[in-house]
Amino acid sequence: MDKSIFRTLSYGMYVLGTKNGDRFSGCIVNTVFQLTSEPPIIGVSISKDNYTHDLIMKEKRFTASVISENTPVSVINTFGFRTGRKTDKFENVSYKVLPSGLPYVTEKMCGWMECEVMETVSLPTHTVFISKVSDSGILERETPMTYAYYHHVVKGNAPKNAPTHLNPDVADPTKPAESAQNTDRIETSLKTSSETKSESKTEKKKAYVCRVCGHVYDGDIPFEELPADWVCPTCGEGKENFVLKEI
Amino acid sequence: MDKSIFRTLSYGMYVLGTKNGDRFSGCIVNTVFQLTSEPPIIGVSISKDNYTHDLIMKEKRFTASVISENTPVSVINTFGFRTGRKTDKFENVSYKVLPSGLPYVTEKMCGWMECEVMETVSLPTHTVFISKVSDSGILERETPMTYAYYHHVVKGNAPKNAPTHLNPDVADPTKPAESAQNTDRIETSLKTSSETKSESKTEKKKAYVCRVCGHVYDGDIPFEELPADWVCPTCGEGKENFVLKEI
Repeated sequence: MDKSIFRTLSYGMYVLGTKNGDRFSGCIVNTVFQLTSEPPIIGVSISKDNYTHDLIMKEKRFTASVISENTPVSVINTFGFRTGRKTDKFENVSYKVLPSGLPYVTEKMCGWMECEVMETVSLPTHTVFISKVSDSGILERETPMTYAYYHHVVKGNAPKNAPTHLNPDVADPTKPAESAQNTDRIETSLKTSSETKSESKTEKKKAYVCRVCGHVYDGDIPFEELPADWVCPTCGEGKENFVLKEI
Repeated sequence: MDKSIFRTLSYGMYVLGTKNGDRFSGCIVNTVFQLTSEPPIIGVSISKDNYTHDLIMKEKRFTASVISENTPVSVINTFGFRTGRKTDKFENVSYKVLPSGLPYVTEKMCGWMECEVMETVSLPTHTVFISKVSDSGILERETPMTYAYYHHVVKGNAPKNAPTHLNPDVADPTKPAESAQNTDRIETSLKTSSETKSESKTEKKKAYVCRVCGHVYDGDIPFEELPADWVCPTCGEGKENFVLKEI
């Protein structure tokens, strides 16, 4: 078994929206997939540890907004790496509310779907919600963000409870997609020759980086002296998931 | 409801492999998705009309090979638009056979998975096979082909019984991905100035094109005179699915 095969499967990126009474919540998923065309039925796999999972179990309805390559990374970080149990994830993002009372995020999204749960499949760690799409709309003419783009260009990771989470030590056997290579080239070409020169002269900076979400620790207290119960401010993972590396 | 939303969902492209006694068969799918990470469980949605569907129902096992951007289009056409009931789809492709007796295609594929069906979900037109990945391997360091790449660059369509099939009249609300734009640019730049000149002088050529698979009819008999039961040699669709357009 070579687990790096799972890095070769392709997905999009989506924000799910749901509610608990008058309070909105949601999360990021990459496993939204159409199961039948007529009637339009989709499936989505969500971790049983996830607050959105419990709300969808209760409400039996949710929205899915399709993330584009121009959706701000801050939206992905807010919905992907914080828990709705403690945070109001909709506080700082643009969204609209459907007649059903469900919210959908509008920030540079390709569009949205409203989904009604028809059936659930319980797996060891996740539930698959098989759901009928009851309404949908297009928002912007944008390129949908693939998970490969998020991984290679945005340099993002999947949180621990994602269906596609892999230990960061599992190699990536894919050649980055063209767009990723292009972006790398653009970033390189933006550096002036003097910058490149000074980089080669100075020692490379090292910092503690979260292996789950990529957060770079830059606090005043040395990382080693942080209390044992300190957690990553972006994704909530513990100190043991930080590694010292060149940035 | 705006059905073009379904064109914004992202997928990969896969060849499923299965068998009926000693005879191999398979098909193309774009809805392979990971449902849990530990243990590794995937889902795949297959039309109930599909021969591969019946074989997987019987065998309870299958393989999935991950198509790359360099996989020959002929492999996609053979597995995607012909039926295994009449054709030996493995006749002209490279493949290997696992100890279980199941075949997987090796032609410029990123890798393969062997899957054991754990549970099936019956939907109106499709069955979702929820399956444990029991073995897997990496074949080539290639970029996995996304369905968007197949659609925008290879100019391919989904056959009528795919979970993601949409009437070709449903608009595509996405901006083609960077790689697609690049390829268009490459194609354009390959044309010499004399070619461009002669093109603008001569009348554009028209032909009957299959709206399902893109096959261009170029037979000796005028298209209008073909018998009523004539079918597309690539995908088997009837004459009514051909449209006269500029090529």
